Amino acid sequence: MEMDNILGQRVSFNDVSLLRQALTHRSANKINNERLEFLGDSVLGFVIAKWLYSTYPQLSEGKLTRMRSGLVKGDTLAEIARYNKLGDHLNLGVGELKSGGFNRASVLADAVEAVFGAVLLDKGFDEVERFILAVLDPWLQKVDPNMSDKDAKTRLQEYLQKKGMKAPKYILLTTHGKDHLMAFTMECIVEELNVTKKAVHRSRKKAEQQAAQLVLNKIEKL
Amino acid sequence: MEMDNILGQRVSFNDVSLLRQALTHRSANKINNERLEFLGDSVLGFVIAKWLYSTYPQLSEGKLTRMRSGLVKGDTLAEIARYNKLGDHLNLGVGELKSGGFNRASVLADAVEAVFGAVLLDKGFDEVERFILAVLDPWLQKVDPNMSDKDAKTRLQEYLQKKGMKAPKYILLTTHGKDHLMAFTMECIVEELNVTKKAVHRSRKKAEQQAAQLVLNKIEKL
Repeated sequence: MEMDNILGQRVSFNDVSLLRQALTHRSANKINNERLEFLGDSVLGFVIAKWLYSTYPQLSEGKLTRMRSGLVKGDTLAEIARYNKLGDHLNLGVGELKSGGFNRASVLADAVEAVFGAVLLDKGFDEVERFILAVLDPWLQKVDPNMSDKDAKTRLQEYLQKKGMKAPKYILLTTHGKDHLMAFTMECIVEELNVTKKAVHRSRKKAEQQAAQLVLNKIEKL
Repeated sequence: MEMDNILGQRVSFNDVSLLRQALTHRSANKINNERLEFLGDSVLGFVIAKWLYSTYPQLSEGKLTRMRSGLVKGDTLAEIARYNKLGDHLNLGVGELKSGGFNRASVLADAVEAVFGAVLLDKGFDEVERFILAVLDPWLQKVDPNMSDKDAKTRLQEYLQKKGMKAPKYILLTTHGKDHLMAFTMECIVEELNVTKKAVHRSRKKAEQQAAQLVLNKIEKL
């Protein structure tokens, strides 16, 4: 592997086999990224906690905990992987490849954590801290101390209730594909505001949440 | 505070107010250990993950995760606090003092984590790593790679089933005290082996688990 740019950062590994292992899914090899993911998950959690603690000296433990959860959760890590096209570098077994594993959120998130573990082992704590903060920088910039831990459907529901309006309607418009490639198109309708938004996702629940979020975004601009 | 021995280790703080804050429960002061606990929890998780990763190069991610959970859980941290008489140094509000907060597992565990956070801030990562590994050493020595994630009642049940014996009986012998000072004495009986053990705990479920564990210990020696 001739890779010196990983997750958008220049890193020259002393032991490139560590990086290779971090990018190897268990479907491809007995020597894979599962143990590195364990290590990377924990160093990520610590680095983000340390950063939040010093960046927000006034915030309560509860808010810090919530902000950290948002930053280290699988969806965020998968976003980071996609943003940096990490999927192109993954080493997957044939089955995983065929079923689109290079774009599966859990596979991507695990690989991001494993890369953090590999950088820790190769470069030590100070370097991996610098690396993690650089990789997550765009997400750290937009982290919101007042972010709600409530999901979009709940927030939309509460907003409409407060305004004395009826609950939104969620309608399943179409399903595409089948089995693990199935996708749902959900529509969220707020009749009294004449706002309707659609979202597509492999999970029906997530499609609902995304449609609700799109409606919330629209309402904020009304 | 003239304390240079904390959790059994010699530490001379540059900023003693950090240690004082780590030992201050939220019932005692607005400046308390909640934020330090957030920080300490995360550095503890990382240090233990790093230690397990390098100490057990052959173990799976699943086993490492289970071992870490056992080492960093509240019950273990409370045990560490009691072993080092940390309760004597806690700064609690009057209400907490009266209701025995200095010996409550959650209060003790939080204080241990907060002390780790304070050492990190005062001394940096390398020192807190050394400190945590020294404090936890007796527990690290006895960590068991083959430890089960099943609880004692489940293990006893499965053991007896495999031997073709009847399930154990659990009997509530007595309750002492009232309200938050109530304690339950549970008895676990395995008739076919003629083994009976008692345990007392403020939680009825935990008393059952402890009685089951005592029976397991006895059976191993039969």
